[in-house]
Amino acid sequence: MSSTSQDTRMANAIRVLAIDAVQQANSGHPGMPMGMAEIAVALWHRHLKHNPANPHWPDRDRFVLSNGHGSMLLYALLHLTGYDKLPIEELKRFRQLHSKTPGHPEVGITPGVETTTGPLGQGLANAVGMALAEALLAQEFNHDEIKIVDHYTYAFVGDGCLMEGISHEACSLAGTLKLAKLIVLYDDNGISIDGNVEHWFADNTPQRFEAYGWHVIRQVDGHDVEAVDTAIAAAKKAGKPTLICCRTVIGKGAPTKAGGHDVHGAPLGAVEIAATRIALDWPFEPFAIPAEVYAAWGARDRGAAAEANWRERFDAYRAKYPQQALEFMRRINGELPANWPEATRAFIAGTYAKAETIATRKASQQTIDGLAAILPELLGGSADLTGSNLTNWKAAIPVRATEHGVQFGHHINYGVREFGMSAVLNGIALHGGYRPFGGTFLTFSDYSRNALRVAALMKARSIFVFTHDSIGLGEDGPTHQPVEHLASLRLIPQLDVWRAADTVETAVAWVHAIERQGPSCLVFSRQNLPFIARSDAQIENIAKGGYVLRDWNEEIVAHKLILLATGSEVELALAAIEPLARVGIAARIVSMPATTVFDRQPADWRELVLPKGVMRMAIEAGVSDYWRKYVGLEGDVIGLDTFGESAPAAALFEYFGFTVENIVKKARALLS
Amino acid sequence: MSSTSQDTRMANAIRVLAIDAVQQANSGHPGMPMGMAEIAVALWHRHLKHNPANPHWPDRDRFVLSNGHGSMLLYALLHLTGYDKLPIEELKRFRQLHSKTPGHPEVGITPGVETTTGPLGQGLANAVGMALAEALLAQEFNHDEIKIVDHYTYAFVGDGCLMEGISHEACSLAGTLKLAKLIVLYDDNGISIDGNVEHWFADNTPQRFEAYGWHVIRQVDGHDVEAVDTAIAAAKKAGKPTLICCRTVIGKGAPTKAGGHDVHGAPLGAVEIAATRIALDWPFEPFAIPAEVYAAWGARDRGAAAEANWRERFDAYRAKYPQQALEFMRRINGELPANWPEATRAFIAGTYAKAETIATRKASQQTIDGLAAILPELLGGSADLTGSNLTNWKAAIPVRATEHGVQFGHHINYGVREFGMSAVLNGIALHGGYRPFGGTFLTFSDYSRNALRVAALMKARSIFVFTHDSIGLGEDGPTHQPVEHLASLRLIPQLDVWRAADTVETAVAWVHAIERQGPSCLVFSRQNLPFIARSDAQIENIAKGGYVLRDWNEEIVAHKLILLATGSEVELALAAIEPLARVGIAARIVSMPATTVFDRQPADWRELVLPKGVMRMAIEAGVSDYWRKYVGLEGDVIGLDTFGESAPAAALFEYFGFTVENIVKKARALLS
Repeated sequence: MSSTSQDTRMANAIRVLAIDAVQQANSGHPGMPMGMAEIAVALWHRHLKHNPANPHWPDRDRFVLSNGHGSMLLYALLHLTGYDKLPIEELKRFRQLHSKTPGHPEVGITPGVETTTGPLGQGLANAVGMALAEALLAQEFNHDEIKIVDHYTYAFVGDGCLMEGISHEACSLAGTLKLAKLIVLYDDNGISIDGNVEHWFADNTPQRFEAYGWHVIRQVDGHDVEAVDTAIAAAKKAGKPTLICCRTVIGKGAPTKAGGHDVHGAPLGAVEIAATRIALDWPFEPFAIPAEVYAAWGARDRGAAAEANWRERFDAYRAKYPQQALEFMRRINGELPANWPEATRAFIAGTYAKAETIATRKASQQTIDGLAAILPELLGGSADLTGSNLTNWKAAIPVRATEHGVQFGHHINYGVREFGMSAVLNGIALHGGYRPFGGTFLTFSDYSRNALRVAALMKARSIFVFTHDSIGLGEDGPTHQPVEHLASLRLIPQLDVWRAADTVETAVAWVHAIERQGPSCLVFSRQNLPFIARSDAQIENIAKGGYVLRDWNEEIVAHKLILLATGSEVELALAAIEPLARVGIAARIVSMPATTVFDRQPADWRELVLPKGVMRMAIEAGVSDYWRKYVGLEGDVIGLDTFGESAPAAALFEYFGFTVENIVKKARALLS
Repeated sequence: MSSTSQDTRMANAIRVLAIDAVQQANSGHPGMPMGMAEIAVALWHRHLKHNPANPHWPDRDRFVLSNGHGSMLLYALLHLTGYDKLPIEELKRFRQLHSKTPGHPEVGITPGVETTTGPLGQGLANAVGMALAEALLAQEFNHDEIKIVDHYTYAFVGDGCLMEGISHEACSLAGTLKLAKLIVLYDDNGISIDGNVEHWFADNTPQRFEAYGWHVIRQVDGHDVEAVDTAIAAAKKAGKPTLICCRTVIGKGAPTKAGGHDVHGAPLGAVEIAATRIALDWPFEPFAIPAEVYAAWGARDRGAAAEANWRERFDAYRAKYPQQALEFMRRINGELPANWPEATRAFIAGTYAKAETIATRKASQQTIDGLAAILPELLGGSADLTGSNLTNWKAAIPVRATEHGVQFGHHINYGVREFGMSAVLNGIALHGGYRPFGGTFLTFSDYSRNALRVAALMKARSIFVFTHDSIGLGEDGPTHQPVEHLASLRLIPQLDVWRAADTVETAVAWVHAIERQGPSCLVFSRQNLPFIARSDAQIENIAKGGYVLRDWNEEIVAHKLILLATGSEVELALAAIEPLARVGIAARIVSMPATTVFDRQPADWRELVLPKGVMRMAIEAGVSDYWRKYVGLEGDVIGLDTFGESAPAAALFEYFGFTVENIVKKARALLS
């Protein structure tokens, strides 16, 4: 093969694998892999630093397929370059149950997939997070003479990604922070599902990205490998994040369907596939790739050499900086420091000893402050509510850009970009080296909701801090008062949701979230919450998500009742215990800071806390439906099933029935 | 007062009302009203067409305070210009329970407030919707010689709005559609909550908006009324949407706090307020406005004249086009056509008679097609999934821009902009004249979630169409398969959620959504669902949200069981009735297309459908927790509490236990 024809053959191998796999599955998206095939050759064959034998080595380039519906492009690339966990059999099982080739790329399922994509725009934001993590980690660990962190982050994006609002949030931030090693290749094919994008997407995209401070390379022929190669080489030297605008033809290679939206998301059909094979001069059977094409694509040697080169450098680094090398490997592997168990136990005990009555958001800040001393990988931030979320801490240096690029720090001012922030957190977490967290008001978890969902699906170790957790925020009113949010976040599979009642629950929630191999939401109050006295056993039990805080057992009374409460309503439940006793009701107060955690406990623990046959009442300043899973149809819930109101917090709790009097009244009605 | 000093006095009246009200409430945001006071003078005193005596007349200009935290600016303007429903007493009760001056502007609470703002960026998108509604309505109803629709839409935005992703979505769309009567005034004060925005928002915003095809007026001195006035005058002639970039000082007038972020969201304090009064030469008591300032601001005469002028035109229009005039008033008042009840009854009966087995998304399209014939105000759309959501219909002309601006049509290709679309829908609904709806996949309701919430809070008559409603979408996999979405949408107060089981439930859901004075989500399947036979009474009962579809009463069996199901799982429940009978279980099948509607029914209906004391089991391909409110602790739920998988739909239903066998097995276990 000549060089040109080799490039063409390599690109056509992608095309044919994509159309064959989609045809076999009778489902999928051939248009994008066909349209981006040459771009993929330029990037993956000429630039991308990766090792098929070890998809996890720390200094690999990160590649994100933000237009994730083109998953067959990525599967084809991984297969062709030699990821042996992705044999041709897996490509034949594209989109089948438990294959390694699901409909959209999923991290953890397929070796070499760096993030889960499909929900448009989020991959791009993940890439921003990865590039940010790389830039910060490089400054923490590199020395002038030895660089152990030195890779690029590449993303493929389509029109869909660039229409999504999150692309604005993430790319505006990337430009502001001057993430010079972020290179985005835009598949500018002029087509989205509804047809020619000119009718709904007439942006001057290059101009838009220049407005963000990006370097933009215009009008690259996306079917010219050399041109794309040259553009990538230029991007590496740009000193800014770079958008390479590649003009492409969607479905390129399909004789009658190329260039139209029909090729986007449906099998080509046997006739068009046969015609495509002829047009591409590809006479081979489905899923048969000639050895010479495998040979051309094979990246095992190059990848092994790249990793070996890095390992050599890392060995030299370890010889010279043994402590830093150990720390780097600990951080990149996501391991906790050796003193973590004792340090956190001591921190929690110290928190308890202080017996403070403060807002749990303030308790959260004190916890971060305490943990940051032993956990340098903490990388905080807020969506322009730093002083409200209290996500910063005493020693935290803000991350800032200078003319030379982003400068190392511990806390990121994400701007008013909740969704972008959350997806960037996911990117940082996936990159490794940091434990990222970011804050906003609980209500605005709505803005970022799908990023929380994707974090949960990926089990990304992102921590989402949500303050101002109820009508307790007061005067800002119903637009800012979460009502349904606690319950609706708890419904997302694999996501933990903590709502702390005081300083100690706050500290335990943080420790649990840091330890967890997955994402957590930490939900805190705006207003002060009283310190709650506890036994050592009770402090231990917080980590179980739900536990008994008080039992009325001073005298025999007529009825039993379990009161379940979270956060600010725990105080209220505790205050009701004596008035309830006076009317003949022996109450047990159960604090349930994390229902999701409680639900994972063994049945005997759950039965111990919530014995069957005892009437239950839940108290939470949020929608009541969720609590039926604990109180059943017979029990009751003091909740909030309407929107809130604008008024001082105390007036609102009173108005909406969060009072001891109402608890007693409802309890009596329940037990009468 | 000289002209200049009158402008200054007018601006200072806003400033002082804002700082006094915030001080009295001990809560609120003085910085923005102080910074935008002169801009407000220029717009409200010199341009805005409004009538304080009638905040609802159809051809008023629409004004949106997208940076809604500056609510005191709007309340001050409404009060000063003469909205008699907003006397000074209400300003004194700023942010108090049930005042007309809540923390953020809320439509329906305060006369003259056009939309509820506070969640940043959404007001801007609402304004795009209003401008779009105006442009389309003008083409439908205006004649060359008489224009009855001819107003501007103005929005105030801050840095926060422009950082939010939704600003990208909405403004890119507005530019593409050439909404020439949309004028946005940008409060470019360089400050957001975290401090100087340059560290997290370094965009060249004018360049960005030019990339969207907007007219941009740069570097206007936002404290120079004349300059702002001139810019607005120029914007009116631009032939494109216009962004006026006003350089301002946040908190202008506060001697020590102006220009810093401390003035954004906290009371100035008595000392600073006293100093501000001196600096502004404003020697009056709190809430005391000199008569001359009231006189200068008063807009009642001008407003009455503007409305009278329009009424005169409308009378002429009515004389010449009596039918169109009637139709215009019906449409703008949101009334249904006189033949609606009989036409929809006939349509539903006709749908039933066809007995079709089709996907409910297809049934939805047929319903739209049927309703569009009697409801010309339907304005559909999709976030780039038209062919999947099936939100278009036979006679629907797509809305397109030409060089002269947007052209009338019935269906909007919103592009891949779920959040922007949803907030634009809200703006269209608030404007009046259209019944807007827009579609995306149910999973991506996450992207737009806060717009649904705000719609519910406002009781905006938006209709959100969500297709591909479960693992039934198949191979696209867990990123695209909703699991928690049905339940979590149902938790939003005041939002109706319908999930239809067949063509008839689909038609009823649409009719209910159209009739409702508030928003609805209509959730439809990708896959075919079988026609279900029903009595006339059962067809009537669909509108109650939950009803008995079958009762096993052919022979006496040992146990009773109620099976509740929705959407595609109703078919499964029906299929289980005989196998259940064979094992001694007499099942009642309850279809619950809209739990939110069912919950509003009288207790006797709910008891009739779900009699107490009968064991219950719910079946829905989504998270199970929600169903505990119906099945209690004793009952069971066949749900999906993990993420889905990528595989053909049939394989997934089988894999996740949505089978008759599993129903029988679980039912036996439950009743044994």
